[in-house]
Amino acid sequence: MAHINQEYLKLPGSYLFSTVGRKQREYQAAHPEAKVIRLSIGDVTLPLAPVILDAMHKAVDEMGQAESFKGYAPDLGYEFLRDVIAKKDYQERGCDISADEIFISDGAKSDSANIQEIFGKDNKIAVCDPVYPVYVDSNVMAGRTGVYDVNTMTWSDVIYMPCTAENGFAPQLPKETPDIIYLCFPNNPTGATVTRSQLQEWVDYANKVGAVIIYDAAYEAYISEEEVPHSIYQCEGARTCAIELRSFSKNAGFTGVRLGFTVIPKDLVVDNTKLHSLWARRHGTKYNGAPYIIQRAGEAVYSPEGQVQLKEQVAYYMRNAAYIYEGLKSAGFKVSGGVNAPYIWIETPGNMGSWEFFDLLLDKAQVVCTPGAGFGPSGEGYFRMTAFGSYENTVEAVERIKKLNF
Amino acid sequence: MAHINQEYLKLPGSYLFSTVGRKQREYQAAHPEAKVIRLSIGDVTLPLAPVILDAMHKAVDEMGQAESFKGYAPDLGYEFLRDVIAKKDYQERGCDISADEIFISDGAKSDSANIQEIFGKDNKIAVCDPVYPVYVDSNVMAGRTGVYDVNTMTWSDVIYMPCTAENGFAPQLPKETPDIIYLCFPNNPTGATVTRSQLQEWVDYANKVGAVIIYDAAYEAYISEEEVPHSIYQCEGARTCAIELRSFSKNAGFTGVRLGFTVIPKDLVVDNTKLHSLWARRHGTKYNGAPYIIQRAGEAVYSPEGQVQLKEQVAYYMRNAAYIYEGLKSAGFKVSGGVNAPYIWIETPGNMGSWEFFDLLLDKAQVVCTPGAGFGPSGEGYFRMTAFGSYENTVEAVERIKKLNF
Repeated sequence: MAHINQEYLKLPGSYLFSTVGRKQREYQAAHPEAKVIRLSIGDVTLPLAPVILDAMHKAVDEMGQAESFKGYAPDLGYEFLRDVIAKKDYQERGCDISADEIFISDGAKSDSANIQEIFGKDNKIAVCDPVYPVYVDSNVMAGRTGVYDVNTMTWSDVIYMPCTAENGFAPQLPKETPDIIYLCFPNNPTGATVTRSQLQEWVDYANKVGAVIIYDAAYEAYISEEEVPHSIYQCEGARTCAIELRSFSKNAGFTGVRLGFTVIPKDLVVDNTKLHSLWARRHGTKYNGAPYIIQRAGEAVYSPEGQVQLKEQVAYYMRNAAYIYEGLKSAGFKVSGGVNAPYIWIETPGNMGSWEFFDLLLDKAQVVCTPGAGFGPSGEGYFRMTAFGSYENTVEAVERIKKLNF
Repeated sequence: MAHINQEYLKLPGSYLFSTVGRKQREYQAAHPEAKVIRLSIGDVTLPLAPVILDAMHKAVDEMGQAESFKGYAPDLGYEFLRDVIAKKDYQERGCDISADEIFISDGAKSDSANIQEIFGKDNKIAVCDPVYPVYVDSNVMAGRTGVYDVNTMTWSDVIYMPCTAENGFAPQLPKETPDIIYLCFPNNPTGATVTRSQLQEWVDYANKVGAVIIYDAAYEAYISEEEVPHSIYQCEGARTCAIELRSFSKNAGFTGVRLGFTVIPKDLVVDNTKLHSLWARRHGTKYNGAPYIIQRAGEAVYSPEGQVQLKEQVAYYMRNAAYIYEGLKSAGFKVSGGVNAPYIWIETPGNMGSWEFFDLLLDKAQVVCTPGAGFGPSGEGYFRMTAFGSYENTVEAVERIKKLNF
């Protein structure tokens, strides 16, 4: 008699963004005339840059000729892509990372969900609070998080590191020692960052206690300030304690194209075993590579034209971020993020609950945000807005919120 | 202190096809002048059909315009693709499967590796022997298979169902009752099939003992005989016991394009829980959908022109299969498969070991096969050849083997 993985039943409700999407669709169905503006899920809206389209057309043509047709990709990704990533994202920033330490994948969501598999069930994870739900949910599914308390919205076996207005939304070293530490900077959902010296403290701490840092740098392209590190490998000692996750979704608009990568330095050894070997074995057994066409698109991101075109896209979104930030601040909201990140993190007015404010905003302004409570207990009383809408919609959304006179 | 998933260390050696690939590269490096012919891994060689190229070019163009740009795909896949699959692959064959029971993915390898996650660790799996390595390896990683015995090449907690010349390479119902049964027809690696009435026995058995069948139908397009079922849902009662995996890799040449799907009927209930809900939750949490461009390519497979063009591709490969089958048979080999499948399963001459024959064939004929022992203990003494090479290479490989006068 077959049995299910009971851990799945512990997950409270559905995945956050599925719930947000469902509520929006239900509202739209009930109010077909309403012009709903979505500034909720971090989904890009600008079309792909010309250089990427060219690369994909060319790759499609190659797939149509016997001489240039490509079947299964190399297990860890094509060398042309891994080489350019190693050079541009790492070596040119002074990070000692080589191409064979880079694993190409279909995106940072998959990687951030799957990476926990190479660790034993007995590891204790530490997460920022609020946090991108995938880190915790994937560990719930693996049976690593204990029991959920609906009142505190916390798991008994997870170490939460509150990121609040008091600490500038930057976590402090936890009192209890974790085995795996998830960090994401620039942060989703708060848009906060840490300086290089702050991150160095985390690297030193992880090396001292033998913890592994899983560093999600999906929003690296939005960094505008000099002292904010682009990679954890800019810190000394990171090669022995840190895995870095990267995405093409936000720097190149690949949310519907699907490409990302994970970096595991060969010096990262746990239980006398290279994590690099374990992840390679996982890739070889459970994955068959990102499509050739998409890997060529990824390569184009690093071309000189690609860099110019994509800087423009990032600038477009950051203009939205500034508009939301300034607009809501001038309307009396307490606002943070938005400077090195496409997310703005905002206190709900009048101590309103996150979901209560979400519903109210949808109903009164036809604007969809993401309720902060969906990211963890310390997110209660906040909401997240993204800069990924069109400029026109962003302006209109801010004006509509202003008119509500909170 | 972090700890690794110790189960990974139990895996003997590397993934089969990685080892085959490495041996081939090493040989080529040592003999740069040799013209090595690969009839090992099931990787296609014909370029993509024109209708698929057109669909992809069109989709790339759509991604370049704001009005038609696509970001994150719907969790379970685009409706245009799920609808046409439900209609063409199922409803037109009399199978009661609806579009919302279909989950689009990046391929059958990922799905066949990931599907075990929704089951508890205490489930006992049954596999054909020989078998596609991913079913077993993914369960090893999950800690479900007990201890490996290097002498018998078996895991203590796995039920093996030998597929041998004696039973026509069709497994018999196991003596010990399994919880999860992996079946693959047309079979990889043997190329064997079962009739609809034989498959009905498995469905009846699974319903009786409360087991779930994971039915891998990746080679469905190669079926040429009337009595061979194209889907397990052609059997009565399969909706309450079977999950079906499908791939676009072999019917449309998508090994480097990456597209597949899994069917989970909503009537499939385990521990009072719909497996459909669990898999949906997994998709929502750990996956972000197949690329829009690739899903449009998948849609084109079902168009009238697509059906014509892809039938030609399948016919091309099946001509290779017939050539290998007849050629090696006439040379005195004991040969099976190749009629409803792109794989030919051949006894090694003179009771030679699989890997011994692999090395000899590479050394003496510069032909790469896959050693049967890599698929399980009952594969020892066999080798697999695939029909996915070019016709010219296939002919030359067969001639080279004939000349060795085994």
